[in-house]
Amino acid sequence: MKRIKLLISLARRGAVGNKVKVTMRELAEELGTSPQSVLRLLDEMEEEGLLERSVDGKKTRVEISPKGLEFLEELCDAISGVLYNGVIIGEVISGIGEGAYYVRQYSRLIREYLGFDPYPGTLNVRVLFPKTVFDALCGVRPVILPGFVKDGRTFGDVKAYRVRIGEVEGAIVIPSRTVHPPKIAEIVAPVYLREKLDLNDGDRITIRVVKP
Amino acid sequence: MKRIKLLISLARRGAVGNKVKVTMRELAEELGTSPQSVLRLLDEMEEEGLLERSVDGKKTRVEISPKGLEFLEELCDAISGVLYNGVIIGEVISGIGEGAYYVRQYSRLIREYLGFDPYPGTLNVRVLFPKTVFDALCGVRPVILPGFVKDGRTFGDVKAYRVRIGEVEGAIVIPSRTVHPPKIAEIVAPVYLREKLDLNDGDRITIRVVKP
Repeated sequence: MKRIKLLISLARRGAVGNKVKVTMRELAEELGTSPQSVLRLLDEMEEEGLLERSVDGKKTRVEISPKGLEFLEELCDAISGVLYNGVIIGEVISGIGEGAYYVRQYSRLIREYLGFDPYPGTLNVRVLFPKTVFDALCGVRPVILPGFVKDGRTFGDVKAYRVRIGEVEGAIVIPSRTVHPPKIAEIVAPVYLREKLDLNDGDRITIRVVKP
Repeated sequence: MKRIKLLISLARRGAVGNKVKVTMRELAEELGTSPQSVLRLLDEMEEEGLLERSVDGKKTRVEISPKGLEFLEELCDAISGVLYNGVIIGEVISGIGEGAYYVRQYSRLIREYLGFDPYPGTLNVRVLFPKTVFDALCGVRPVILPGFVKDGRTFGDVKAYRVRIGEVEGAIVIPSRTVHPPKIAEIVAPVYLREKLDLNDGDRITIRVVKP
């Protein structure tokens, strides 16, 4: 972890494609260690080919080597490769009660486009991971429930993403003009999810995006 | 680093939003350490709140906690935040000699759109970092040199990205129908870069993308 922290800190100081002046004291403070340890770490990392260094009197200049940059890139690729696989983890919360009204308006479309009769209400989930609903859904094509006009009122397009919670299949619905920030996922399903899965506010659940 | 490797390995086994069965032996093999060390590491990481564990007889089930997932996400964000800042590192190579011909064809457009008279030739750079030219250029708007027809031959649109190499300003040019994979950056400049910067094949150079 010290190696990674040091590389990130050096990159932040401009050591990508460029040698930057560093002092052991500054780096030590940032890493919460001693200047001696930083010096030893720099020695090791230079040895490993992760960085390049030139010492001129009391001045040390450091640059992350292409190998060091590749190491960081690969680490980041490995992490995003395993993290974003259509899993959303969240906490059950209470909605503001609007869900039921909207589900009723769109129920015919949900039946037609998603293939089930929705329970009249949504399960609201505060997303804990990833940062927003969109981070988990990027790359997944939604089913569009087309907007319509009823009694002079306009109901906009709704994007629906098929998901599974336990054994139940439902969908995350995101109105184009939602009042929720994307930290909240609203889920429609053919059953009353709170009862079926015995969920209470604060319970943690795992939502799996169903890829078509 | 062990913590990160273990988290990535657990994520790969499906421990995101789900408890998975693990054996110390398997994890130890993957991390190149002993089963005892893995057990100690799991203890520490559970203590730190990075993962959740249940032990049932000889079976251990592990899940990465939301805090553990956030740790990985933030690490990845920190890395990409410092890495991709419009710096390209590459190695000078010889082109296949086509550069000069094309620069002559587009020279009027280069003058008009980029504001300089190009030296009749391109500097070819094999990109070492990031993985491809596009990784460094994503998010940067190119100047489009519009295609044209001359003597019955069609010359397609060319995307030009202003860059600086040392003190010289030039541009990476990417024809829409390039024969180069994006591991090669072709640079046009008002001067003969090899001479001006004393460059030879194999020399490493830093290219900075100039943001408009």
